[in-house]
Amino acid sequence: MAAIGTDGLRERIQDGIEDLSKLTDDAFVGWGRVVFSEPYRVARDWVRRRMVEAGLETRIDASGNIVGRLQGEGAAKPIVTGSHTDTVVGGGRFDGVVGVLAAIEVARLVRESGQRLHHDLLVVDFLGEEANEFGVSCIGSRSVAGLLAADQLERRDLAGRRLGDVMESFGLDVGGSLSSAWGRGSLHAFVELHVEQGPLLERQHKSIGVVTAIAGIERLTAVFAGRADHAGTMPMTERLDALTAAAEAIVTIEREGCGAPVHAVTTTGRIESTPGSFNVIPERAQIWAELRSIESSWLTGARRRLAEQLAADAAARGVGVDLEWLSDQDPVPTDQSIQGAIGRAADMHGLAWTAVPSGAGHDAAHMAHMGPMGMIFVPSAGGRSHCPQEWTELADIASGVEVLLSTITDLDATSTVARV
Amino acid sequence: MAAIGTDGLRERIQDGIEDLSKLTDDAFVGWGRVVFSEPYRVARDWVRRRMVEAGLETRIDASGNIVGRLQGEGAAKPIVTGSHTDTVVGGGRFDGVVGVLAAIEVARLVRESGQRLHHDLLVVDFLGEEANEFGVSCIGSRSVAGLLAADQLERRDLAGRRLGDVMESFGLDVGGSLSSAWGRGSLHAFVELHVEQGPLLERQHKSIGVVTAIAGIERLTAVFAGRADHAGTMPMTERLDALTAAAEAIVTIEREGCGAPVHAVTTTGRIESTPGSFNVIPERAQIWAELRSIESSWLTGARRRLAEQLAADAAARGVGVDLEWLSDQDPVPTDQSIQGAIGRAADMHGLAWTAVPSGAGHDAAHMAHMGPMGMIFVPSAGGRSHCPQEWTELADIASGVEVLLSTITDLDATSTVARV
Repeated sequence: MAAIGTDGLRERIQDGIEDLSKLTDDAFVGWGRVVFSEPYRVARDWVRRRMVEAGLETRIDASGNIVGRLQGEGAAKPIVTGSHTDTVVGGGRFDGVVGVLAAIEVARLVRESGQRLHHDLLVVDFLGEEANEFGVSCIGSRSVAGLLAADQLERRDLAGRRLGDVMESFGLDVGGSLSSAWGRGSLHAFVELHVEQGPLLERQHKSIGVVTAIAGIERLTAVFAGRADHAGTMPMTERLDALTAAAEAIVTIEREGCGAPVHAVTTTGRIESTPGSFNVIPERAQIWAELRSIESSWLTGARRRLAEQLAADAAARGVGVDLEWLSDQDPVPTDQSIQGAIGRAADMHGLAWTAVPSGAGHDAAHMAHMGPMGMIFVPSAGGRSHCPQEWTELADIASGVEVLLSTITDLDATSTVARV
Repeated sequence: MAAIGTDGLRERIQDGIEDLSKLTDDAFVGWGRVVFSEPYRVARDWVRRRMVEAGLETRIDASGNIVGRLQGEGAAKPIVTGSHTDTVVGGGRFDGVVGVLAAIEVARLVRESGQRLHHDLLVVDFLGEEANEFGVSCIGSRSVAGLLAADQLERRDLAGRRLGDVMESFGLDVGGSLSSAWGRGSLHAFVELHVEQGPLLERQHKSIGVVTAIAGIERLTAVFAGRADHAGTMPMTERLDALTAAAEAIVTIEREGCGAPVHAVTTTGRIESTPGSFNVIPERAQIWAELRSIESSWLTGARRRLAEQLAADAAARGVGVDLEWLSDQDPVPTDQSIQGAIGRAADMHGLAWTAVPSGAGHDAAHMAHMGPMGMIFVPSAGGRSHCPQEWTELADIASGVEVLLSTITDLDATSTVARV
């Protein structure tokens, strides 16, 4: 296949980001567009129109994914690329959006080149990738991977609305979302372009990140049960202070992450303590934390070490601790052949690249159930993400699209992507 | 003065505790009777009636203190005894109540003996001793000590009500409460019987505690300012985690109390952290803590050490910390002559006693501004207080009343209590 030109690419990407940044929720600072919100509905219409303008046949599947198809010359399995257009509350303009716009541009550029891919190219805007009040992230990609469970549709948001009902009000086929999985081995390849959301590329002055793996996650909550006593009269040695026990656990959780010999992060994101008076020793404290790593063995070890250490430290204080592991998600390595294709594409465009882990979860982790998966990162200024300050330079996004295009044409030329 | 009999004392104390335990707020667990509540109003009517039955002339002063007077043979300065009948939310049956009932019984026993004290005996149920939503404890005793400030009347509760307005609705003379101080040197002596609220007497098998000093308090709040980042993508070394900084401070504050060479306690009673999601590094955390000791020099040193350590630890993390010292209260030593009188009284009744500090604040701390002050403690089961489990044996309360009576007759026999 001849090299495909990219004239006008930057302008179209910039227009797209500007258009979508207007279709957001004014009630919050930033550029929030939460799944099932009115701005999300309007933005999805914009995405579908842009797919049509790019010459794609579009449909919305049972789970609400917007799927645009560029027909290939006949090979059975499609190459799939895409990301999401929902955001966290008060989020930024780039997380997800960059990957959807890039996917559409790649399809447009291929079509406008007058050339044909061997494989069908599917461009997807996945439904509801971000964590939401229902506690079900990646709704669309879970669904096509056959990983959406019926009990997840029963989850409720803070207003008490059932996820299944909200999906139905959004015009989706809820029954279909549980039974329309694409099937294992049904993809030739899946490649997602995304902003890094971390500082590694910027710090190393690299334009392109070749993602090695998507981190696994272990989430826990620990409830510390002490005894409420008068803060003035109970000697230090006689106290059963639930809050100090929790504080010690937070420091221990941080230390586990800092001491990891591999890529790993540990975060206590939330704490609650009662009764909350100056002069009463806290009776109860609860923390919510998570461990992430691309190494399963580290996650397993850290989980065991923390369970032991938190129990021992609380016992030494006479404070009870009840540890619950809420969910876990295994690390998902990317396909090494696709890593190679991305690296070659970056080299061809003269772009500095490096291998990086993904600490964040992505639709790609679920798509990996159906075929070889790869991810391309572009730099995030200051590593900021999920906030209004989120920023990626237009030049870097354009480089990312060029690498995505070249990666896809490279993968298109192979009859089977080796799964290593 | 001949020894005064104490027939029927236990029964009257028990009746009093039972009667008052019924005049409480059913909306909460325990025996709560918060200042200005309807149960408090009703309980005060009960107290005033019981003073009248004991033969006291009663009045309610501008600040709402119920004052019963047993006229003496003519000495100018009164001996004063009493405590309070308000409680914390969900409090117990003994804190404060024991001292008010004891004071009334002492006056009754003196009167029924047919003997006369040289000094007037004033029995006081002080208004609103406990910490409340207005942030003004010991309203009545502060007022008579001339320590109630006009700006304290401007403080508002969680419902937005101004303290001055609430006092007026309660039938009090708000202007008078600011200007009706009893004057320095106006008391012959003040003695308060109270439950210990700590475990020292019980652990040492003592019936009586001779209080050496009421602890001083330094209160602080620390706000930690970090940066919200994605919990999966921001490496451990690049984070500005406000919650972990706060957790480290909580552990440091505890360590300061545990390492104190004198009587001291340190408590972090409250924490808040935002945004509070699993997957976002906390941007802001705030803690509220207090230090208590009977040693001014330790309090001053601990305050300086904590200010330095918290600032250094936060700086090492790149997290901002803003420390504010909210209030302070100097330690108040008790009068050594009164300590001696209490010890002699306990010996006379064959009761085991020991010197103990008071970690809790008391009306007595303010009454010490007007004359020599002493306090008698009786044991608290398990050291529990400010909770429904609060318990003191009837026999111990009766012993406390006997010691209070003997202490008062002893002090009555001296023309001037030496202030040491």
